[in-house]
Amino acid sequence: MIPASAPTARVRAVTPGGFDSGRTLPEETPVALVYNGGTQAVMMATPADIEDFALGFTLTEGIAPRHALPDVEVVAHATPSGPGLEARMWLPPEAEMALRARRRASVGPVGCGLCGIDSLGQALRPLPVLPEAYAALTVADMKFALGELRDWQPLHDETRAVHAAGFWQPGQGILLAREDVGRHNALDKLIGALARANIDPALGAIALTSRLSVEMIQKTVMAGCPILLAVSAPTARAVRIADGANLTLASTSRGEVQVFTHPRRILTRRREGPRFGR
Amino acid sequence: MIPASAPTARVRAVTPGGFDSGRTLPEETPVALVYNGGTQAVMMATPADIEDFALGFTLTEGIAPRHALPDVEVVAHATPSGPGLEARMWLPPEAEMALRARRRASVGPVGCGLCGIDSLGQALRPLPVLPEAYAALTVADMKFALGELRDWQPLHDETRAVHAAGFWQPGQGILLAREDVGRHNALDKLIGALARANIDPALGAIALTSRLSVEMIQKTVMAGCPILLAVSAPTARAVRIADGANLTLASTSRGEVQVFTHPRRILTRRREGPRFGR
Repeated sequence: MIPASAPTARVRAVTPGGFDSGRTLPEETPVALVYNGGTQAVMMATPADIEDFALGFTLTEGIAPRHALPDVEVVAHATPSGPGLEARMWLPPEAEMALRARRRASVGPVGCGLCGIDSLGQALRPLPVLPEAYAALTVADMKFALGELRDWQPLHDETRAVHAAGFWQPGQGILLAREDVGRHNALDKLIGALARANIDPALGAIALTSRLSVEMIQKTVMAGCPILLAVSAPTARAVRIADGANLTLASTSRGEVQVFTHPRRILTRRREGPRFGR
Repeated sequence: MIPASAPTARVRAVTPGGFDSGRTLPEETPVALVYNGGTQAVMMATPADIEDFALGFTLTEGIAPRHALPDVEVVAHATPSGPGLEARMWLPPEAEMALRARRRASVGPVGCGLCGIDSLGQALRPLPVLPEAYAALTVADMKFALGELRDWQPLHDETRAVHAAGFWQPGQGILLAREDVGRHNALDKLIGALARANIDPALGAIALTSRLSVEMIQKTVMAGCPILLAVSAPTARAVRIADGANLTLASTSRGEVQVFTHPRRILTRRREGPRFGR
């Protein structure tokens, strides 16, 4: 039996002059996401909330829908450079066949011999368009959400080196948050945790401590959440893709709020009863 | 003819109250890395210095050594969500055969049906151990290197949203730096640019604006650079892997220097002639 890693580790650190100051750092562990005995991906992730991570990845990659998520069994293995984790999931036959067909057709870090034109077209998969009758926030909510997220970051308090993703519901505040050394992983963990807690992402906003690249937009849209907030800027392409998917994208930078897409969901004044929510 | 993207784009941004403030953001474009007509990877990257990126990726993935780097032809394509780039490279027959064999055996975001144990073992490839008779820095050099890097970030000055990687040589300062929305890409671009400029990474240190995950260690070691500096923390596993590869890893955090591995290359006092360098 290989013990699973702790999410943080104490390491030696020397400050100039030779004083050993030590430091607590986040752990980074390879996690294999395995469906029906075949590995779909190996991600370097902080070894905490691995079930959430596996289910969030399953959702945001479109491998299984929310109502048909598989059970997850997490198994620890030894690798030459330390422990690794395997998240084992089992899909019903139709879902497995669809996944195998997609594997054959897709490309990524390992390549499958497709030429550049084919693989570029497949790299940016088409996204669903979010429906309209969804949550809205006030500007004050938005600032509260990003501020409150700071209280949900125990690993960051310990290490000052991990990202967080939280879910904010108007009138309720942050309901859940998850952390990881990787910002994509933190978001997948949050989305998996929301599914397990049976919280509908359509009813609130996701708040991130990180920048907003295309992949963060893709995951948020696949989760069905209509508003994405961050403390840092999006890329220009992320803005265009959010616009096309009917996602509201907003960030704060040095205290200033900027809304990049679909600003009707960010209300400039106090909401009044039935106009808000759905 | 599809025009290549500019590295930044001006987008609309609304501040609360409806004032359109606008913002210049970094662009993010899919880049297919294609060897002998087969795609090895598609990465989302800032469309600048793509030749450097392609050659750096080729080096850090161990696809071709520094003395046998291929020519790069960059071709722009249209994709449904905007332009994409293809970096076409041609390898000699032996290198192509080795790459095809590795593709068959490896796993990644697309998966190839290996079980979790096999794929965990392959995710953290063995690294070479850096040789000993290499560069060293003083603590003052280290702070200068990270400070001077700020002067080499035109895209960050424009967008406040990209990472940078620079190469610092003692007595000469930063020789080259590259930027990207992705920290891995910025490092690959720097490593490719160093190879094209015929600068030996063994003679100095790489300085980064980002955190130090395992992948940043792998790339630095594959490039043959003995010292990696950053303004933010490493992960615990990155520290262990750097230790095993004989890489000196140091970071500054709120002005404090911490050296995590092989501190003999960070000198606490002024260097004296022949004791320094190689």
